[in-house]
Amino acid sequence: MKNTLGNSITVTLFGESHAKAIGAVIDGLAPGIEVDEEFIAAQLDLRRPVGAISTPRVEADKFEILSGVFEGKTTGTPVCIVIPNENTKSKDYSEIRCKARPGHADFTAFQKYHGFEDYRGGGHFSGRITAALVAAGAIAVLALRKKGINIGTHIARCAGVNDINFSNLDEDISALNKKEFAVLSDAFGEDMKNAILKAKQDGDSVGGILETAVTGMPAGVGEPWFDSVESVLSRAMFAIPAIKGVEFGAGFSISDMKGSYANDPFKIENGEIVTLSNNNGGINGGITNGMPIIFRCAVKPTPTISKNQQTVDFINMQNTEILAGGRHDPCIVHRARVVVDSVTALVLCDILATRFGTDWLA
Amino acid sequence: MKNTLGNSITVTLFGESHAKAIGAVIDGLAPGIEVDEEFIAAQLDLRRPVGAISTPRVEADKFEILSGVFEGKTTGTPVCIVIPNENTKSKDYSEIRCKARPGHADFTAFQKYHGFEDYRGGGHFSGRITAALVAAGAIAVLALRKKGINIGTHIARCAGVNDINFSNLDEDISALNKKEFAVLSDAFGEDMKNAILKAKQDGDSVGGILETAVTGMPAGVGEPWFDSVESVLSRAMFAIPAIKGVEFGAGFSISDMKGSYANDPFKIENGEIVTLSNNNGGINGGITNGMPIIFRCAVKPTPTISKNQQTVDFINMQNTEILAGGRHDPCIVHRARVVVDSVTALVLCDILATRFGTDWLA
Amino acid sequence: MKNTLGNSITVTLFGESHAKAIGAVIDGLAPGIEVDEEFIAAQLDLRRPVGAISTPRVEADKFEILSGVFEGKTTGTPVCIVIPNENTKSKDYSEIRCKARPGHADFTAFQKYHGFEDYRGGGHFSGRITAALVAAGAIAVLALRKKGINIGTHIARCAGVNDINFSNLDEDISALNKKEFAVLSDAFGEDMKNAILKAKQDGDSVGGILETAVTGMPAGVGEPWFDSVESVLSRAMFAIPAIKGVEFGAGFSISDMKGSYANDPFKIENGEIVTLSNNNGGINGGITNGMPIIFRCAVKPTPTISKNQQTVDFINMQNTEILAGGRHDPCIVHRARVVVDSVTALVLCDILATRFGTDWLA
Amino acid sequence: MKNTLGNSITVTLFGESHAKAIGAVIDGLAPGIEVDEEFIAAQLDLRRPVGAISTPRVEADKFEILSGVFEGKTTGTPVCIVIPNENTKSKDYSEIRCKARPGHADFTAFQKYHGFEDYRGGGHFSGRITAALVAAGAIAVLALRKKGINIGTHIARCAGVNDINFSNLDEDISALNKKEFAVLSDAFGEDMKNAILKAKQDGDSVGGILETAVTGMPAGVGEPWFDSVESVLSRAMFAIPAIKGVEFGAGFSISDMKGSYANDPFKIENGEIVTLSNNNGGINGGITNGMPIIFRCAVKPTPTISKNQQTVDFINMQNTEILAGGRHDPCIVHRARVVVDSVTALVLCDILATRFGTDWLA
Repeated sequence: MKNTLGNSITVTLFGESHAKAIGAVIDGLAPGIEVDEEFIAAQLDLRRPVGAISTPRVEADKFEILSGVFEGKTTGTPVCIVIPNENTKSKDYSEIRCKARPGHADFTAFQKYHGFEDYRGGGHFSGRITAALVAAGAIAVLALRKKGINIGTHIARCAGVNDINFSNLDEDISALNKKEFAVLSDAFGEDMKNAILKAKQDGDSVGGILETAVTGMPAGVGEPWFDSVESVLSRAMFAIPAIKGVEFGAGFSISDMKGSYANDPFKIENGEIVTLSNNNGGINGGITNGMPIIFRCAVKPTPTISKNQQTVDFINMQNTEILAGGRHDPCIVHRARVVVDSVTALVLCDILATRFGTDWLA
Repeated sequence: MKNTLGNSITVTLFGESHAKAIGAVIDGLAPGIEVDEEFIAAQLDLRRPVGAISTPRVEADKFEILSGVFEGKTTGTPVCIVIPNENTKSKDYSEIRCKARPGHADFTAFQKYHGFEDYRGGGHFSGRITAALVAAGAIAVLALRKKGINIGTHIARCAGVNDINFSNLDEDISALNKKEFAVLSDAFGEDMKNAILKAKQDGDSVGGILETAVTGMPAGVGEPWFDSVESVLSRAMFAIPAIKGVEFGAGFSISDMKGSYANDPFKIENGEIVTLSNNNGGINGGITNGMPIIFRCAVKPTPTISKNQQTVDFINMQNTEILAGGRHDPCIVHRARVVVDSVTALVLCDILATRFGTDWLA
Repeated sequence: MKNTLGNSITVTLFGESHAKAIGAVIDGLAPGIEVDEEFIAAQLDLRRPVGAISTPRVEADKFEILSGVFEGKTTGTPVCIVIPNENTKSKDYSEIRCKARPGHADFTAFQKYHGFEDYRGGGHFSGRITAALVAAGAIAVLALRKKGINIGTHIARCAGVNDINFSNLDEDISALNKKEFAVLSDAFGEDMKNAILKAKQDGDSVGGILETAVTGMPAGVGEPWFDSVESVLSRAMFAIPAIKGVEFGAGFSISDMKGSYANDPFKIENGEIVTLSNNNGGINGGITNGMPIIFRCAVKPTPTISKNQQTVDFINMQNTEILAGGRHDPCIVHRARVVVDSVTALVLCDILATRFGTDWLA
Repeated sequence: MKNTLGNSITVTLFGESHAKAIGAVIDGLAPGIEVDEEFIAAQLDLRRPVGAISTPRVEADKFEILSGVFEGKTTGTPVCIVIPNENTKSKDYSEIRCKARPGHADFTAFQKYHGFEDYRGGGHFSGRITAALVAAGAIAVLALRKKGINIGTHIARCAGVNDINFSNLDEDISALNKKEFAVLSDAFGEDMKNAILKAKQDGDSVGGILETAVTGMPAGVGEPWFDSVESVLSRAMFAIPAIKGVEFGAGFSISDMKGSYANDPFKIENGEIVTLSNNNGGINGGITNGMPIIFRCAVKPTPTISKNQQTVDFINMQNTEILAGGRHDPCIVHRARVVVDSVTALVLCDILATRFGTDWLA
């Protein structure tokens, strides 16, 4: 399936950084879901470069819905959203026709596509493609909210600076979704920004960790084994460029716990079954237990930097150096946040539709 | 697809801990692959409980190949492998008909299957089902070896004790694949075993981290986006019970690196393009770059413990306590190792078959 | 996916005619569906050879349910049904190791599997594998009946003899499902049997047409385009060996009609929307309209005959002749009937589960 | 998967008749396939209305390739082709908001999409969407030709008039692919056109049968059971609006043959294994045998006619009549021809890529 995600609700991604457009086709959405174009635009804004800490390549991200929406609502047939590429400066990238940028997909794309790949601006591997995921995901985010399912992500760590932990999830999610730079503590957020700027001045880049919480998911959703909630979410997260680790609940730190501590005790509260801790991140045996889903994604530092790097010319097969031109971000963690939210929403809509049928989401 | 993994080569898993049998159907294997029943048995032995640090439930794991193999070789049609359940003591588990074992899938299974689930011994959620993955995976492991692709996993950390790091990958893999308790340093392995025994004496359990290396993968395999090598491997890893985190290359620690350090410089060595570091774990843009694939899985402590735990009776909807009877492992990290190897092999065979066609693997 | 059918409910088929067993894994069935082993056995009996008009190879078709059923009901996890091969006479088939039986898959299997195929008795291409489809389908047939959805197939034509047309569908279906030789007119059925016997005496074989009716399907099920009800049913029907044509409603004869005649006028009757004719076979735009689904399958004459036939030795690459030994049927139309019913039931369960969610079928 | 076809090479369809655009995403195409925009335009021309025998709605079908093509060749990443909707007269269709056109999907769409469907001009069910299939298919048609695989379809029967049979397949295919009205005998073609015009004058419509031949397919491609060549081709054909029957080789007439006649004898000719007849249409056991693939599709008369028809108002739930306004075709058989060719090419590319790997097609 390659560029397609999902079973009941599928997302097919297309586009290259410097071709005519990028976009996505979402199929399987229930008919009658509200499509709020302003909300889509607002979500796209959250992904756009932000001031000094981002790339100077700024595009309006004007999207167009070609199909599947009628009178402001989904029809139930495939929704195609297209975002034209506008502000493309292809000449910046001519050097990478033969030089592999370390940490990037130039060399692997050449190995896979034998030189036919559109190499300009990273082509199909460009982070720009995630704008289509955000546009598609916005429909899913809003549909889930109306069902009481809320998704929020904060920058748990960036450039070595920690944010504070989630405390009141629903309030935190609500606050995060209004922020351009998604931290729970704006003070620590300033520290992060300063660290990003410092890296930028050095011609370098930094990474971080995004932590996501989902509240309101009903218990009993997901599958054992290969379509466990962890499986489908991680598959989707690792599709996002630069993500190199995904963990649920206590994640890697659970491996140091004793079972007596790691196990989340069950308790009845107000007639509902809850757990007293949430080291399993809301998932037992691959299936939701009704507690918040919690996961973290490790985002690597942007590979494109303004420093001389050792590399190869893979066409002429010789060692060389590269000093990346082009416009690039010293950090993409804050921009990746809304991508994570969007992809999460698409995945959850999919597993909910599998569980409850085509019409449930509307 | 639920219990099915893969695109070109698929694995469909079935079975419950206390039903007649567990098993798997592998479809899409090239015709002519050698099926070495002794090797399958040897791999199953690596998953079996080991002395004092494991559960006293020991089964012969006698498997039977019902189809798809003729005169010792795959026919190209579906291979069904069945492992009968023998040493089942169902009475041990009667209590969990209504009491949710913390950290287990009893409650979520009830939410999903409305009480029709086979609850005995964890039913379809039991770690026992992984024996079928090991049997199926053994065919893949051996087929890959003949193609020069080798997979090895060590217990990088267990009960708070670290193993040493990989040094010479091919030698390390070769050594690990002969070991019952897969550590690079047997001395540290003894420390781990002692810590496991200590937890057992306390009626408790411990977890750990498995680190896997794959050598010999050709460059240019995998897909961008949703079928990135990270995506397909992580989806498969998170299907393994108790795994709560997956990271590639430097993983979570890459998020603290600067780009200038995290990026793996390319270099031509002996006419081949290699990278000088491997923080990306052999994968750029979702596609193999020819360097070793490296990833780590966080394994949580076994949820079944011999301590009193707070929980709920989800049928009668009341708070209660549980003191798990039944036979269980104080640690499954060392047993999960071969499961990780097996699942890795199945995933790699799948993406190689997609890339190079049906016949490539034979 | 190769040997797997379906999206929400999947069936994976395995087995060869002379290997240890054949079988199927059905995944995605709702938990709580009754599994009536006597009914499965009765359905398998309908597929078994019948007296003089069938092959003398008679097997008990003793099936075993290995997983996914607990206390007589589906658990919601994969159901594996296995039917051991017993009465195998492999020596009969030794000649076809190199000689291609005309009309059979011997040569194409060799082209695809390079000689590694299990050639005995047709291997994975044997009609025997359909027994697994019948066993799996029996669960679906019964589940649909409880939802008021009934499936029945008659031999509309065999050896050039026509059966009468459907008149009262529900009564006809009920009557057909009790018959060993499924005709609406037993008198014409006798004519068919005589024609089959005549062909047998000539060492020859005959074919026919099966016509299937489904009543009780709700309107609004199915998809436009590639998962139209016609698409998914035809895909499944053409998987049944010997089927070379599938048509819905008026089928090929609709191509000679005028639109004013072919169009089925809508009318409200007793508060329900119905059509006055059913030339579209209950499907408009790929989606059910609530009228009976009607389709016909063309079944070719059994390719294995007791006459000398011109063919090739594809291993030694020379022209030769073949006089098929082995046990074979002069006609499989009457045996294929229950296979068509079974596969229809599996497909309908799948599209209903997609439409109404996992739990609907129980 | 709903609007997605294929395994290794997938086509995802989107669009409504009166929304902004229709289009398709083709994923999995080998990198380096030539994309000839003139050929795409020429294929689209073959689908466009032709003079008096077609609808007066004529659109330029200007297509735009948004992604996946670089410097005239496929990149290996998803190709998105968009065809804007231009000449839309939505007011013509206002009546069908509540009245079901007999033979059309208005009522079933309402049942499935609950009134949220874009009903204008048939919405997602419109034959117009097939333009996207033709554009996508054109890339496949040309790629196959370069591999020596040729596809041609003639109008075997229309309005009760028969064309002559195929004689020299490769010459016939070559001739057909240049014709606007694809018949082997232009004289009979004139008879067909006259019959179409006669139906048009009566405010009525006619149907027909399309017969397709594929030469040059290698033997050993396809799968047994659910992905048999018949299964995957029929699934795709039944996705084309108005197709109600599909048969391979001798098709329904094989059911009246004796086995001794129906079986295609094998023979070695010029060092190649061929069959002396082709009643099986080039497919044995679901797998190609190297002979031409032959199949026929029954096309129903266009449901939209200029006659008063009995129907229902499904919103107000009352019996009523409808006299369809709007522009429509008295026959779509000749226009459907290139759709059948296109879809055939896409399906064959898919199964060839599965068999021989991602790169084979380039």
